[in-house]
Amino acid sequence: MVVIDLNADLGEGDGPWRLEPPADDALLDLVTSANVAAGYHGGDAVTMAATCAGALARGVAIGAHPSYDDREGFGRRPVDVAADVLRAQVAHQVGGLIAVARSVGARVTHVKPHGALYHAAAHDEAHAGAVVEAVLSVDPTLAVLGMPGSRVLALAADAGLRTVVEAFVDRGYRADGSLVPRTEPGALVTDPAVAAERAVRLAVDGVVVAVDGTPVHLRPDSLCVHSDTPGAAALAVAVRHALQAAGVVVRPFGPVAAAGPAGA
Amino acid sequence: MVVIDLNADLGEGDGPWRLEPPADDALLDLVTSANVAAGYHGGDAVTMAATCAGALARGVAIGAHPSYDDREGFGRRPVDVAADVLRAQVAHQVGGLIAVARSVGARVTHVKPHGALYHAAAHDEAHAGAVVEAVLSVDPTLAVLGMPGSRVLALAADAGLRTVVEAFVDRGYRADGSLVPRTEPGALVTDPAVAAERAVRLAVDGVVVAVDGTPVHLRPDSLCVHSDTPGAAALAVAVRHALQAAGVVVRPFGPVAAAGPAGA
Amino acid sequence: MVVIDLNADLGEGDGPWRLEPPADDALLDLVTSANVAAGYHGGDAVTMAATCAGALARGVAIGAHPSYDDREGFGRRPVDVAADVLRAQVAHQVGGLIAVARSVGARVTHVKPHGALYHAAAHDEAHAGAVVEAVLSVDPTLAVLGMPGSRVLALAADAGLRTVVEAFVDRGYRADGSLVPRTEPGALVTDPAVAAERAVRLAVDGVVVAVDGTPVHLRPDSLCVHSDTPGAAALAVAVRHALQAAGVVVRPFGPVAAAGPAGA
Amino acid sequence: MVVIDLNADLGEGDGPWRLEPPADDALLDLVTSANVAAGYHGGDAVTMAATCAGALARGVAIGAHPSYDDREGFGRRPVDVAADVLRAQVAHQVGGLIAVARSVGARVTHVKPHGALYHAAAHDEAHAGAVVEAVLSVDPTLAVLGMPGSRVLALAADAGLRTVVEAFVDRGYRADGSLVPRTEPGALVTDPAVAAERAVRLAVDGVVVAVDGTPVHLRPDSLCVHSDTPGAAALAVAVRHALQAAGVVVRPFGPVAAAGPAGA
Repeated sequence: MVVIDLNADLGEGDGPWRLEPPADDALLDLVTSANVAAGYHGGDAVTMAATCAGALARGVAIGAHPSYDDREGFGRRPVDVAADVLRAQVAHQVGGLIAVARSVGARVTHVKPHGALYHAAAHDEAHAGAVVEAVLSVDPTLAVLGMPGSRVLALAADAGLRTVVEAFVDRGYRADGSLVPRTEPGALVTDPAVAAERAVRLAVDGVVVAVDGTPVHLRPDSLCVHSDTPGAAALAVAVRHALQAAGVVVRPFGPVAAAGPAGA
Repeated sequence: MVVIDLNADLGEGDGPWRLEPPADDALLDLVTSANVAAGYHGGDAVTMAATCAGALARGVAIGAHPSYDDREGFGRRPVDVAADVLRAQVAHQVGGLIAVARSVGARVTHVKPHGALYHAAAHDEAHAGAVVEAVLSVDPTLAVLGMPGSRVLALAADAGLRTVVEAFVDRGYRADGSLVPRTEPGALVTDPAVAAERAVRLAVDGVVVAVDGTPVHLRPDSLCVHSDTPGAAALAVAVRHALQAAGVVVRPFGPVAAAGPAGA
Repeated sequence: MVVIDLNADLGEGDGPWRLEPPADDALLDLVTSANVAAGYHGGDAVTMAATCAGALARGVAIGAHPSYDDREGFGRRPVDVAADVLRAQVAHQVGGLIAVARSVGARVTHVKPHGALYHAAAHDEAHAGAVVEAVLSVDPTLAVLGMPGSRVLALAADAGLRTVVEAFVDRGYRADGSLVPRTEPGALVTDPAVAAERAVRLAVDGVVVAVDGTPVHLRPDSLCVHSDTPGAAALAVAVRHALQAAGVVVRPFGPVAAAGPAGA
Repeated sequence: MVVIDLNADLGEGDGPWRLEPPADDALLDLVTSANVAAGYHGGDAVTMAATCAGALARGVAIGAHPSYDDREGFGRRPVDVAADVLRAQVAHQVGGLIAVARSVGARVTHVKPHGALYHAAAHDEAHAGAVVEAVLSVDPTLAVLGMPGSRVLALAADAGLRTVVEAFVDRGYRADGSLVPRTEPGALVTDPAVAAERAVRLAVDGVVVAVDGTPVHLRPDSLCVHSDTPGAAALAVAVRHALQAAGVVVRPFGPVAAAGPAGA
């Protein structure tokens, strides 16, 4: 049986504001894991609570989506922050989201860094280490999501944390497994049919075809659909249907459950 | 043996900024419990981490000091917020601070609402209930600090939470046990000698003399020294010395310890 | 010739975030004056610049829409702030928006307080005075928008500022000219046909019929369509068409022009 | 007659918070120009108003001190922002400060970029151009402060703006006129006597001796004393006294006056 998780980054609004285009509700019906903005690049307690409650009601797994402290830049700007500061900031975000989730009866199962922190954690030893130390200190049962071959996954595995390998159905890859930069042709996959075909191949064979035609072995446990591009919901519909049509079981990579007794 | 805890609200700066007058370091040497600003009225992850580390090094107990979402008003403005929103906001703050404390090896033992939320929790059923529900959902081993007779302590006790009664050594009381409003004469006690004398009487007899001369039975477990008034450190020195000279043991109201295994 | 201005509050997003429901572009095509959020309840430099540029391109007059310093509460919470602080805050917002408008070649023609400040300025002498003093110090050629009979208009007129009387096509009125509170029946007018009929009567006769049937003489210079209610754009379409069908000239209450030489 | 201006960056607090160490009041008594934080890296309307009023009372010239939109990083992090966005942001800050200054009867005479924007404006054509365009659109009578040879001064001069060359009495220089990076020896001059001697030589001869012994001709119109280093006030005292002892007239580089009629 082929099994795959489908994840998206959600809850990135703030109070009465919503990130454009607002696809959260539609995506929550389609994915099996939601990475919820934890307040530093988007999200506030109300949005977190609503997104966690929506995920809980649908059996969608909840992840914390921590960022650099960079609200003005939506967490997309590299930040040269000391590792101990970053460790405290990631712990702050993950712990805050866990508590909000608990307050609506839900639990957090994983952590996926956001934006510039996601990319730094793939190769920067100090920042990857800070993320892993923060997760360890807050809750060592949390899984860590990242790109195949990333430093954060290696350090997490060394520390005994569960790791989850992720691939993007809507981004182009290079032969070395890295993403095509957004400034270059082939960076984005916007055709739902193409994304759906890539999703099935990734789920079944673990392979994506790079822009130069090379097959790249990524072997993902989870496929990510970005929520902040036009057409995200339509693309996610196509991906989900294609996976199911191919006989792939789409479900969270780990157990999803309501929160047990607090403090347990 | 007479035992009393001495607490202060600390860590209310933000990044490179400090609240005036900055008495945090001096007060950490004098108190036995520190209520650490949890980000909504003051405080950020770096300040939280530094304050928790400073408390841990001195054997000072750490409390979360959550506020209404009102940074512009430093948490001193009443906010007419729905109870479920407030519950998520308090959970967010308490959980975030717990995680930052863990990231520096410390643990949080109690929760004391800040400013306008502190006063609302004393009499407003919905807001007091939201605080208690948030604490229960995040960690039911946390104690709740409040004024004697306050709704938040009654609801916390009903829910099985530990409650800690607090009195202020630097504020005037009325015969009914309420504080003299800051706009009236007798609101503040700024003479260290007078504050010290009141502290001893509160610790030994559980009594404070109201502005009209009536003795009021408060029976506090903890005495609060405000950190944001001029002379706070000198006043705390006088209070601590007087308590010790009177044979009162000044120590945290509960166990203080480094964080155990995360997630435990 | 009957002439009326049509205004809406716009630009209340923040960076990548938009206020729900986002009707800004549709409303900019329909109104003749846009009150642009000036940063304290919504809005940032980028959103201000885009909204001002959009207004300039359509010949829509630009107003500054200052708020209490209350981003968490979207400027809808009453704030007990000292008058001199409020004066500095209103000057800060109005001056900031004027400069951003100039940076895209546009100019600001008026000031309309937002939310709780709008209501306070109608009856609170100190806060109305602070708004007027701020406008005077920044640019005495700016007009002030307010409700008929409001203190801010009286003080503005006394100070020699131009005043503009505003009525709401989508809110119910009481016989004394005040708005039906949002918590009572009849507070909102959501039927586009009804709103359109009221708009025409307000423009032609200066009259609105109160919830108890009393005709109330408001004699507005400008009609406001709220942008943050569902169906705002459809309602504005109906209002604009009905006004034009009735032969009412819909245009800004004052001259609209590109910015002249800076500093002039 | 040798004349020099003495400037410092002030008003970088926020509401009840102050930047550590808080030397604003002491420095306002010593300098002749104050660059007031304009809200993006520090400062709020209340702090701006108080700093402008303090400067006005002492005859100190007021400058706007705009920053990248980076409050978390105190404006010290490079930001890769589009030029038109930066132009709107600088206009927003400068215009907001001008208005707050006017609301307390003061006027703004110049603009000095802060932190990472200051350094980018020295060599980055697009960002230097955005600053100059913003100043031009807001008020072309404002002077621009910068390092000798910086792009922002060249572009400002081309556009007809007044330019003011600045040198630092508390920073080490390299033979090419650039500053010794903070991570290298000789970056800081902390000895008040040494700083005072350098100040006199800069004012009288226009020369500073670089770390390798080379005399560098900077010919400054203004000398900057940093406010955020320990001992800033003592260093400023020594500099001011030494300049006066050497017969140098210490005064603002341009006219300082209360605000004229608003809008003029």
